[in-house]
Amino acid sequence: MSERSEGAAMSRAAQYVGDRTLVVRDTEPVPPAPDQVRLNVAYTGICGTDLHVLHGDMDARVRRPAVIGHEMSGRIAELGAAVRGRRVGDPVTVMPLDWCGRCPACRAGHTHICHRLTFVGIDSTGSMQRSWTVPARILVPLPADLPLAHAALIEPTAVAVHDVRRSRLAAGEHAVVIGAGPVGLLIATVARATGAAVTVLELDPRRRAVAADLGLSTLDPGAVDVARYVHRHTGGAGADVVFEVSGSAAGVRLATDLAAVRGRLVVVAIHPTPREVDLHRVFWRELELIGVRVYERDDYAEAVRLVHDGRIPATRLITRVVPLDEAARAFAALEGGGEVKVLIDCGGAG
Amino acid sequence: MSERSEGAAMSRAAQYVGDRTLVVRDTEPVPPAPDQVRLNVAYTGICGTDLHVLHGDMDARVRRPAVIGHEMSGRIAELGAAVRGRRVGDPVTVMPLDWCGRCPACRAGHTHICHRLTFVGIDSTGSMQRSWTVPARILVPLPADLPLAHAALIEPTAVAVHDVRRSRLAAGEHAVVIGAGPVGLLIATVARATGAAVTVLELDPRRRAVAADLGLSTLDPGAVDVARYVHRHTGGAGADVVFEVSGSAAGVRLATDLAAVRGRLVVVAIHPTPREVDLHRVFWRELELIGVRVYERDDYAEAVRLVHDGRIPATRLITRVVPLDEAARAFAALEGGGEVKVLIDCGGAG
Repeated sequence: MSERSEGAAMSRAAQYVGDRTLVVRDTEPVPPAPDQVRLNVAYTGICGTDLHVLHGDMDARVRRPAVIGHEMSGRIAELGAAVRGRRVGDPVTVMPLDWCGRCPACRAGHTHICHRLTFVGIDSTGSMQRSWTVPARILVPLPADLPLAHAALIEPTAVAVHDVRRSRLAAGEHAVVIGAGPVGLLIATVARATGAAVTVLELDPRRRAVAADLGLSTLDPGAVDVARYVHRHTGGAGADVVFEVSGSAAGVRLATDLAAVRGRLVVVAIHPTPREVDLHRVFWRELELIGVRVYERDDYAEAVRLVHDGRIPATRLITRVVPLDEAARAFAALEGGGEVKVLIDCGGAG
Repeated sequence: MSERSEGAAMSRAAQYVGDRTLVVRDTEPVPPAPDQVRLNVAYTGICGTDLHVLHGDMDARVRRPAVIGHEMSGRIAELGAAVRGRRVGDPVTVMPLDWCGRCPACRAGHTHICHRLTFVGIDSTGSMQRSWTVPARILVPLPADLPLAHAALIEPTAVAVHDVRRSRLAAGEHAVVIGAGPVGLLIATVARATGAAVTVLELDPRRRAVAADLGLSTLDPGAVDVARYVHRHTGGAGADVVFEVSGSAAGVRLATDLAAVRGRLVVVAIHPTPREVDLHRVFWRELELIGVRVYERDDYAEAVRLVHDGRIPATRLITRVVPLDEAARAFAALEGGGEVKVLIDCGGAG
């Protein structure tokens, strides 16, 4: 038996069917199992990974037809019989990770790097649909007064919070962010919120303009001797923390060049092939290279706070909202460049 | 005015004169300036860096003729007028670093990575001589009952202590040491002293035999699938800490392959050219790459304790002692392989 809200008869979902194609179809809502909830999805943001899925880069991992999407917000529509502490109508997002609890990483407390991690929305069905049924344990409750469109930014903000936390960035330190895509901008914003001085490096003038518009200090690494600039602006020291968010060999090279003695270099971007790293400089300056992957519960709590209190400038980061039936257009807009965050209005908001 | 012991009329020094040549000559002892002391040097160990100097690899840095050497022990022979808290006859070693105190690294408290660091024995005159005059501030006092030959191991032991400390290795964790030269053996020994399980990887059968003789668990990475072995022996987790002491591209590759989730990879060996690093694995397992350089005062204090209480098996690590006049033979013995630590008896012991 399950508690159920009214009027949730049919759902509608954007499905990746292969061959760079999204199809939007009517679907049957999935009744929640005892430990699940069914959500009415308000918004789903499109992540870079979602673009990779659409391009077929992850066909080995994604079973088709696939409903993808994991940057979401919505309200509880129906509760499984065993779910406690939640109510129909509660505004929520999800931390889209499901772990085994038994592997060495889980036993060591690093559940977000579970050896058998299920990333919800890639390895299992995602949120790009009006009605979505998920395990209750992945829910994250939201403040009642947080706009649901803004709440769709919590997942990528949690990524940024995790990356900044792992860097041990402190107030008064200097951070450099290499790459001003959505993740780079969020990292820069979170880094600024810690009280650090932040410089953003970006080759693309449109992305640089967005960063400048957010009040961030920006540089074009194609036009400026960045190492000289950073060392001059830090009294000869270099950057305390460098976030490599470009995914490029040049970004990795620049990261070691810019770092101060004992500087921390955070490898945020995914580098599919091995990269040359200046290990002599790593030794000479006692640098640290720090790997980062998704987030933990504490990062989510902080991300909710940052989006809620406006330190994440949600209205400026969300550059387009597209209805679910036009999901393909939303992906195309993001690929076209010039957008920061594109949300799909999944129709479950009200 | 300076307090002076008797009978220190002439000195004798091994001088690197270029062209792979050491010449041993009589020299005049240098009277100590007010903030200096003159030491009678008992022993000087030969470091891998000293071999590089003899090979001419560091001619751009080393002014010839050069007395090199920095792994030393001895007794105070003469005190500069302003030196307090030391007495003639005190047994000492040195921490061979001299820093500016004004650069950004020094101001941040990382004096051992001073932007203008003087490494005593490379950038200035070293200890491969009977009588050696040094700034009093670099002295490290020794326990009276510590044999001076053993005390010559304190400097390389401090390297190992620093590397293990930076790795945050804890009791019960698993460490892998790639490369069983003198530094690798000392790291393995210090790691074992923390209560960690240690596996040493070494291609050279003679070095492997030395490691086994010290009671260390060893593997031949040329004969065994090391990744499979390490994962099987850690319940599928991988190594918590990997020390890369081989200086090889293969060692760097192996380090990322062996590491557990949140594993720490310590870059001990000096890699003169950039190395390919599997940054995807760094991301996927949230690994850390940690640069390490020399040591700090606390590392010296711990190194003195470890050598003093026998946890560093000095008598087994010191495989040869050669008189100063035969310094060239000592270098040749080390290059021939099969030795661990070769000491030069500098003749100042008594």
